[in-house]
Amino acid sequence: MNAGPPTRRGRRPGAGSARGQILRAAQVKFAERGYEGTTIRSIAREAGVDASLVHHFFGTKEGVFSAAMSRALQPAEIKPEVLAGTPDGLGERILRSFLQQWETVERRDPMLAVIRSAVSHEDAALQLRRFITTEVLGTLARSIPGPDAPVRATMVGSQLIGLIMVRYIVRVEPLASASTETLVELFAPVLGGYLAGDG
Amino acid sequence: MNAGPPTRRGRRPGAGSARGQILRAAQVKFAERGYEGTTIRSIAREAGVDASLVHHFFGTKEGVFSAAMSRALQPAEIKPEVLAGTPDGLGERILRSFLQQWETVERRDPMLAVIRSAVSHEDAALQLRRFITTEVLGTLARSIPGPDAPVRATMVGSQLIGLIMVRYIVRVEPLASASTETLVELFAPVLGGYLAGDG
Repeated sequence: MNAGPPTRRGRRPGAGSARGQILRAAQVKFAERGYEGTTIRSIAREAGVDASLVHHFFGTKEGVFSAAMSRALQPAEIKPEVLAGTPDGLGERILRSFLQQWETVERRDPMLAVIRSAVSHEDAALQLRRFITTEVLGTLARSIPGPDAPVRATMVGSQLIGLIMVRYIVRVEPLASASTETLVELFAPVLGGYLAGDG
Repeated sequence: MNAGPPTRRGRRPGAGSARGQILRAAQVKFAERGYEGTTIRSIAREAGVDASLVHHFFGTKEGVFSAAMSRALQPAEIKPEVLAGTPDGLGERILRSFLQQWETVERRDPMLAVIRSAVSHEDAALQLRRFITTEVLGTLARSIPGPDAPVRATMVGSQLIGLIMVRYIVRVEPLASASTETLVELFAPVLGGYLAGDG
């Protein structure tokens, strides 16, 4: 009774959107149940498709998680316009772009779900580590000079993830309800210092 | 068949250690199953006591979690000897004391369990927020001058929790395997800057 993967039957209009539908469903389930509590079957049910279609597109649960994570974290990628411009303003541009994504609730929730999964499960942490290392910190490290660029990029990452923890997850005041402008005023100089190697 | 809480029957030698036994069991269960997946019953089973004894000592699951968390985070409290000494060296003393606790595996694991619970469950996040606000950042804020002491203490906290995420949870290199001395060299100046208000 299995309809088989759609590519075997040639292209059809639903194929592209089925993949997106599965990824959205995966984000919902990983957010609700965490990495360990989520099964391919439950993702398929949420997406209204057969489990074989999930296997077809993504292989294993690790594969679905990886794709759902890349989709959730797309806003966290460092954009070319952030890297362009004066080195002086790089810390502030990174921080503003970062906060802009995190202050948008529809983008924040899937990113929080990824962090929740990574904190509670080693496979998910590995996936997040790969993404952060290649897509975020690697990109950043290549755009700053010096042999210690990787360590400085990672220091920037550590301060940003700490800000997420304090502001959006544990919600410690006064940072939890500080304005974006206050955060820029407080943290842009230190990010600039990390990037310049005098932090 | 319920033996009832021990205090009703007068003091007896086992009472003090039963409480500690329950807290150790609670740490194990919260670490394994997270906040949501842990029940009073499962903690009692792990501790080898009756569930009524857990209720007697701690009331609700929230109560057990709070007590288990305080116990797990004791090493994270800011010690008087860290606050004593020159203001100049405060950032470095905080960082060294913090890393000393986190580099000790028997202390790290219960602290990681608390963070895992807080990230995945709102009740646990609330408990962690209370602890951090009163026991850690409140203590720190009172020891530095100026009206913006609370915000500066929270900035220090955000960098430290970010370091935990990057080094022990997501394990991003090169910070994951950097030596303690390297971390002090990298982060002590910025913590000092946050504390001095020029960060």
